[in-house]
Amino acid sequence: MFEEKQETLIDGVKENDRDKIYGMIDNMYPIDIAIILEEFDDKSLLKFFSLIDDALMAEIIEQASEELQVRMIKLFDFKAIVSLFSYMSNDDIADILGNLPIQMRKDLLKMMKDGDTQQLQELLGYEEDSAGGIMTTEYIALKGDLTIGESLKKIKEIGPKTEVIETIFVLNKNKGLIGTADLRDILIAPEDKKLIDIMNDNVISVNPEEDQEKVSLLVSKYDLKAIPVINHKRSLLGIITVDDIIDVIIEEQTEDMLRLGGVSKEERVDSALTTSIKKRLPWLFINLGTAFLAAFTVGLFEDVIAQVVALAAAMPIVAGMGGNAGTQTLSVVIRSIALGEVSLKKNWKLVFKEIALGVINGATTGILTGIILYMKYGNPYLGLIIFAAMIGNLVIAGFFGFLIPLLLKVFGIDPALASAIFLTTATDVFGFFLFLGLAKMFLPLLM
Amino acid sequence: MFEEKQETLIDGVKENDRDKIYGMIDNMYPIDIAIILEEFDDKSLLKFFSLIDDALMAEIIEQASEELQVRMIKLFDFKAIVSLFSYMSNDDIADILGNLPIQMRKDLLKMMKDGDTQQLQELLGYEEDSAGGIMTTEYIALKGDLTIGESLKKIKEIGPKTEVIETIFVLNKNKGLIGTADLRDILIAPEDKKLIDIMNDNVISVNPEEDQEKVSLLVSKYDLKAIPVINHKRSLLGIITVDDIIDVIIEEQTEDMLRLGGVSKEERVDSALTTSIKKRLPWLFINLGTAFLAAFTVGLFEDVIAQVVALAAAMPIVAGMGGNAGTQTLSVVIRSIALGEVSLKKNWKLVFKEIALGVINGATTGILTGIILYMKYGNPYLGLIIFAAMIGNLVIAGFFGFLIPLLLKVFGIDPALASAIFLTTATDVFGFFLFLGLAKMFLPLLM
Repeated sequence: MFEEKQETLIDGVKENDRDKIYGMIDNMYPIDIAIILEEFDDKSLLKFFSLIDDALMAEIIEQASEELQVRMIKLFDFKAIVSLFSYMSNDDIADILGNLPIQMRKDLLKMMKDGDTQQLQELLGYEEDSAGGIMTTEYIALKGDLTIGESLKKIKEIGPKTEVIETIFVLNKNKGLIGTADLRDILIAPEDKKLIDIMNDNVISVNPEEDQEKVSLLVSKYDLKAIPVINHKRSLLGIITVDDIIDVIIEEQTEDMLRLGGVSKEERVDSALTTSIKKRLPWLFINLGTAFLAAFTVGLFEDVIAQVVALAAAMPIVAGMGGNAGTQTLSVVIRSIALGEVSLKKNWKLVFKEIALGVINGATTGILTGIILYMKYGNPYLGLIIFAAMIGNLVIAGFFGFLIPLLLKVFGIDPALASAIFLTTATDVFGFFLFLGLAKMFLPLLM
Repeated sequence: MFEEKQETLIDGVKENDRDKIYGMIDNMYPIDIAIILEEFDDKSLLKFFSLIDDALMAEIIEQASEELQVRMIKLFDFKAIVSLFSYMSNDDIADILGNLPIQMRKDLLKMMKDGDTQQLQELLGYEEDSAGGIMTTEYIALKGDLTIGESLKKIKEIGPKTEVIETIFVLNKNKGLIGTADLRDILIAPEDKKLIDIMNDNVISVNPEEDQEKVSLLVSKYDLKAIPVINHKRSLLGIITVDDIIDVIIEEQTEDMLRLGGVSKEERVDSALTTSIKKRLPWLFINLGTAFLAAFTVGLFEDVIAQVVALAAAMPIVAGMGGNAGTQTLSVVIRSIALGEVSLKKNWKLVFKEIALGVINGATTGILTGIILYMKYGNPYLGLIIFAAMIGNLVIAGFFGFLIPLLLKVFGIDPALASAIFLTTATDVFGFFLFLGLAKMFLPLLM
């Protein structure tokens, strides 16, 4: 299906057949066309662009991946780009400009209309992952003393050019945001009432510096369709729409999941080999440090192991189970942090639950482990020692699995990024130390 | 802040002070009130309910957590509940009913109006995590041959009672869905044009059986505000709104992240101790099986370790690094599967990239490891052996880290649920086997 469409498009481009192309793409969404264009070479891209009209091309570019956007923009001449930009909203233009080399960005800005340039400069000034970085400046804001009739007229005028019309933002005389009005309520209100009478004056808003993840939590909590971005004077700077919030949620989740697995968020399955090496190798070296710490711990007890070799076979169980139990705690805590449900200050007492969990789960799995080892090696003390070590290491796992991410959060470090490495260090080192240390203490009983 | 509001509310309830309560909650969102009520005991809940009006109470219940919803519904008498339901939309009622004991659900349904009951029965018939399970039946659907003027009149009539008004669903004479019209376009179109002339006839829709995760991928890909649910006759059964889609995305992501960490999705940081034990212990036992497999592998080489005890200290490095590298691959692949970006059929060739990555990352970290071991134990062959074992185990990690989740997906098993356990088994067993096996082969060189 996808391959068919792709081939038809490629053929159409080769044959310079405008009708064939439009016959194909007329019933397609711009995002689907963009996905097909990903596979086009530069020559075909340029030719495709020459065959379709600017408005559609602008829509396709808006929906394309960052890489394709940059590729296309670099292919076209500046005049063509500025003409394409005239079909796009300022936040999309700012996103594209933000990904271009600085000189190219400056040159393009120079060629654009003065009014646009100023607004774009402002948008480009915000951090990419802040409220300002993801907001759009296309919305409808009306003065509160307009009547419903006047408002409806304005909405009909401005509506076609803006992203959000279902929420109207209501301003006072100083252009400060004082409320929002649902289009639904405007439609049914008497014509002579004023906007200020039907608006909701308890507006949830954010500052432009606010982290996009926090913005997304607000939108999802309050089921908002759009959230206004205001400065400290309550002037409306822009709005963030729910479709952009969905992108933020997916982006932040991807980041958390990959970081927890020891990969930078930018990597995808089909990233180039060199990219994957760069993203993963540094992390593996950090892990290597941890592994050497664990090996060093074991090394302290080489004399004990030399006398009771069974210890070498049994010790990975203690360390491994600690790691598994700690990862369970870690996953629950990191996810709760991401959803804004937990903080060290408010919930530190829950560490006792994790400790209790460590004792219970450690004892339960430890008994089984002890019995199996006893049966295999015929020594009950080996079973007792591993039972005790399992409890100890699962308590450590619960303690660190709970505290590490919350502490990192307090220090402003992303818990998903660094928690696992600290946790594994703790459960490996303590696991080996506890088990082999106990074995050393009771060595005569084991021989 | 939160504590203050909570206390004021509790005081208001104690003192039977309606004014105090309303003074507090007038400027609050229902979700925030619901969060405060979480901490109320049954008596206070009942009293709070008696002091505020039904419409607000219904809104609060809609926003409350599942547990609180069930608690409240069980507290109230059936007549009060049916009266509360009259303020709610059918999909919210169905969600609440779905969480109640079956007998209670049946009794409540008997007390409701016949028309409602039928629709509710239908909604309750769908799987909770299917499109049918999350859709709402409150939308505006109009016949395509209505004029814009007539349509606007209808929208003003029905609008206040429905969830979504920014998208109007357009039907043919047989009530089949033939298109959607944006309210924005209706507002600006000439009064005498017909809906059918301005609608978009290329509608993205889903069947009621469709998995909610797939629905969320469609909504996010096409930036939809609502997606229609249709049956095989193209009759419109309901719509899914973007705020419910956000809940789905967050829910599915939480599930993936927790499952990957070895926890059932239902657990939260503040779940009861017994709940946490039930969610985590089974998984730990499965892991214990893996740990014993690894221990058994080591046990095969006890004679070798007895002769070269340094092997016991070095072997966790090989197994651990394999686990780390495999987890990196696993995270990237599982996330890509969740986002619908990758499948075994389409992308199996990428396994060669992961293998190459294993060789390169294994060689790089292996060299360093080999040198350090050589320096510590003074034996170059030990260094060479661990270098070779690291390459081997990181290749295995890449191979299994890539294939396991994609194979599980093919067999209809959630990759997030079971991938990690298979992967760790592979990297542990192969890691120990490779390293100790090589050591056994070259034992004379190591002594």
